[in-house]
Amino acid sequence: MASSQKSIALVGSGNWGSAIAGHIGEKIRDLKGQYNERLLMWCKEETLDDGRKLTEVINKEHENVKYLPKQKIPENVIAEPDLIKAVKDADILVFVIPHQFVKETCEKLKDKIKKDAFALTLVKGFYVDEKTNELQLVSEIITKTLNIPCLSMMGANIANEVAEKVFCEATIGSRDDKHSETVRELIDTPVFRLRFYPDVEIIEMLGALKNVIAMLAGFSEGLEAGFNTRAAVLRLGFREMINFCRLYKKESTPDIYLESCGIADLIASSLGGRNYNGAKKKAETNKSLKDIEKEDLNGQSLQGPGTAKEAYQFLEGKKLLDQFPLFRDAHLICEDKIKPKVFLDNLSKHPEFDRKQ
Amino acid sequence: MASSQKSIALVGSGNWGSAIAGHIGEKIRDLKGQYNERLLMWCKEETLDDGRKLTEVINKEHENVKYLPKQKIPENVIAEPDLIKAVKDADILVFVIPHQFVKETCEKLKDKIKKDAFALTLVKGFYVDEKTNELQLVSEIITKTLNIPCLSMMGANIANEVAEKVFCEATIGSRDDKHSETVRELIDTPVFRLRFYPDVEIIEMLGALKNVIAMLAGFSEGLEAGFNTRAAVLRLGFREMINFCRLYKKESTPDIYLESCGIADLIASSLGGRNYNGAKKKAETNKSLKDIEKEDLNGQSLQGPGTAKEAYQFLEGKKLLDQFPLFRDAHLICEDKIKPKVFLDNLSKHPEFDRKQ
Repeated sequence: MASSQKSIALVGSGNWGSAIAGHIGEKIRDLKGQYNERLLMWCKEETLDDGRKLTEVINKEHENVKYLPKQKIPENVIAEPDLIKAVKDADILVFVIPHQFVKETCEKLKDKIKKDAFALTLVKGFYVDEKTNELQLVSEIITKTLNIPCLSMMGANIANEVAEKVFCEATIGSRDDKHSETVRELIDTPVFRLRFYPDVEIIEMLGALKNVIAMLAGFSEGLEAGFNTRAAVLRLGFREMINFCRLYKKESTPDIYLESCGIADLIASSLGGRNYNGAKKKAETNKSLKDIEKEDLNGQSLQGPGTAKEAYQFLEGKKLLDQFPLFRDAHLICEDKIKPKVFLDNLSKHPEFDRKQ
Repeated sequence: MASSQKSIALVGSGNWGSAIAGHIGEKIRDLKGQYNERLLMWCKEETLDDGRKLTEVINKEHENVKYLPKQKIPENVIAEPDLIKAVKDADILVFVIPHQFVKETCEKLKDKIKKDAFALTLVKGFYVDEKTNELQLVSEIITKTLNIPCLSMMGANIANEVAEKVFCEATIGSRDDKHSETVRELIDTPVFRLRFYPDVEIIEMLGALKNVIAMLAGFSEGLEAGFNTRAAVLRLGFREMINFCRLYKKESTPDIYLESCGIADLIASSLGGRNYNGAKKKAETNKSLKDIEKEDLNGQSLQGPGTAKEAYQFLEGKKLLDQFPLFRDAHLICEDKIKPKVFLDNLSKHPEFDRKQ
């Protein structure tokens, strides 16, 4: 194995993690030698109901039977239960864990990775500091803690469909041409097309925020609100997403919102994503989202409620909740403080309708 | 009846025409006297299967039993089979007929309307001259033939849902503040919110073009293409819609595309509009769109195939078909020259993926 071969590690092995591991695993196998074929995928060890260890099952059956069942993962993807072992030789670290675990995972990785590595985050979510109200993105935490650059990738990429090789596209945030080329080699295929923009943070933020609006799409559907209303919810929600991004950071590229990371991811997530489905069920059954997670998600969690909470806190700190009624109401519904129907009643009073052009 | 009262006429009485007639009819009744309460709706006479005249049924039962069944229309909306009688005293003419009838209808109205009237078009479609390849919008034909200004209104407004008073919004194209105010009075309500922009032509064009992309959404769904692919089709199609508009006319307002006339109308039409449903059935059954129209539309027609044809011709004349593969393929599918599946296979080669940012 030539020492010039670069190695890739995945930090995470859930539904999306396993799908993208399979995709990258096939790509580097087909590239024959440009990259180290062994793709290590950190997998937090779990004992399955039948007593077997999850990593052992993945490495023997080449299938993540818990989080991406019925989809084969190529044999060169190796599940590794030891986080440090998984990443220590990696030149490229792909982060794909629930966002609430990013800080502690980065802390564990400090000084344990290659100095000239770079990261790519697929994580949906951000942190808002309870005291300072400061918003921190996952890419920023990775860069700050590990002292490596971090790219982002978001798009209309429902994991099971990616595993089934259904056509999709995604947006890469990168300000480094060499890193962009590497990511293109690792991920771009005829069924997974990439576009590149320097707006790392906007791309990442859109990927997080869309889960909140997708929940509203689910509530609308659960309440049988009709197509006109669902379209209005998505449009007004998309406006709030853009305004939220602009609060945080001015975009480099005005039409970044029309990329896969923006409108397309919002549409896909609002047609059939996990947050959409959970919210739909809540509106139909009046159950709490926590109960729905337990019933339907087999140990995975909804990212929408957490992001709604962080967004609420950020906007409340800036005294801007009135300008973001959809984000406000999404959080209040998740917390069972208002009924889903209330947000529909509030649509008519959306500040968008008082805004001059 | 004070002579200062303004009168409104509807030119058209199909599915959307009847729904908006009901909406405006209620609004002017509630305004008590500011407008002439009698709203005349031109209705091309038809004999129903039971031998009755359509206008007589509408005026007796206050329901358009053929094109908007099961929805009551207020009694102050009067169906009038004589076109000239319907419009001769009108100060505001709302056009809502299939676009293929606009030219001949305007010719009939020449010199028959009030000189200081203005028009509002809700018509989806445009003309491309077969010889000169010149594109003409409905608003332009109305203004040129009748010598009156013409505003446009487009948005996520599936007719039956508007009749059911489900919340929706729409975008008005207007460059005259007084006309804008009148339209706001006539149409804006808590369940039908309006936003105003000067981009009359872009708004109108988006309303026409979205029917083509909605057909592609229907083909995708009929072929069980998955949410990621459907989202990519809508995004890439939306890009082509924007590029098409820019070919024709530079927008006044860059984010006009994020209004109800743009992304929201595209979403609603791609979730459940007539063109979407027809296209879905075509992909599922291999029937021709003409047959599907006959089976499902009770005398109404699909606007998507006509617009796809006009768009194809316009782009072909400009030698730009390669830059608009979705518009190109939509027309070829409608003409049964390629199978619906071909457009999905072409997605991967979309020129968007070669475009720098």
